[in-house]
Amino acid sequence: MTLNEFRENIQQKSADTPCPVEKTLTLLSGKWTPRIIYELQKTPCLRFGELRKKIDGITSTMLSATLKELEAEGIVNRTQFNEIPPHVEYSLTTAGWDMLPIFFEMAKWGTKYRSEEG
Amino acid sequence: MTLNEFRENIQQKSADTPCPVEKTLTLLSGKWTPRIIYELQKTPCLRFGELRKKIDGITSTMLSATLKELEAEGIVNRTQFNEIPPHVEYSLTTAGWDMLPIFFEMAKWGTKYRSEEG
Repeated sequence: MTLNEFRENIQQKSADTPCPVEKTLTLLSGKWTPRIIYELQKTPCLRFGELRKKIDGITSTMLSATLKELEAEGIVNRTQFNEIPPHVEYSLTTAGWDMLPIFFEMAKWGTKYRSEEG
Repeated sequence: MTLNEFRENIQQKSADTPCPVEKTLTLLSGKWTPRIIYELQKTPCLRFGELRKKIDGITSTMLSATLKELEAEGIVNRTQFNEIPPHVEYSLTTAGWDMLPIFFEMAKWGTKYRSEEG
């Protein structure tokens, strides 16, 4: 499907047709969800504390809840290392990596319309 | 820039580099914002009440606040018709239409990973 076919397609669909965009939107509509996925695309493997430091304004509670959701959705892997001291690392699943084109299109849009703002 | 170059690029950037993805993410991170843009991509011209009916669970207050934000961001046009009765229609600006590829990539991801769920 091309972009033009996509446009025609969504404009012809009735409001009730289940739509794959809606499902992705629901998944990405949390305040922190896309940001966490994007940080894991930038740095493919991160500990909880590292991830928290990268995301301005997120609390441990919110990060923990969002990571649990993303694990349940099959977007994020949680790997526990039973070393001393034990630690946990987060990374993306294949499905999480496959969201990269969405962020790529966001980058193109941002470059076109927001780059002048510094 | 290709998708692979994008990946390499974001992985090499320092955390402090301003990034066009962040700006688009900030814009799209509201609970209702991407949904409103997507509805206006599906139906290019909508009245307030029509838009509200299309978005499950949104209140008039939230819709009104989000539309104002989107106007201020240059994503949505608000056209007032001084007919009797007067009414207002919302549509996308060129910048709003240029977000279509982001939603197209969301559709591809959703089709690949969420279509089996009905």
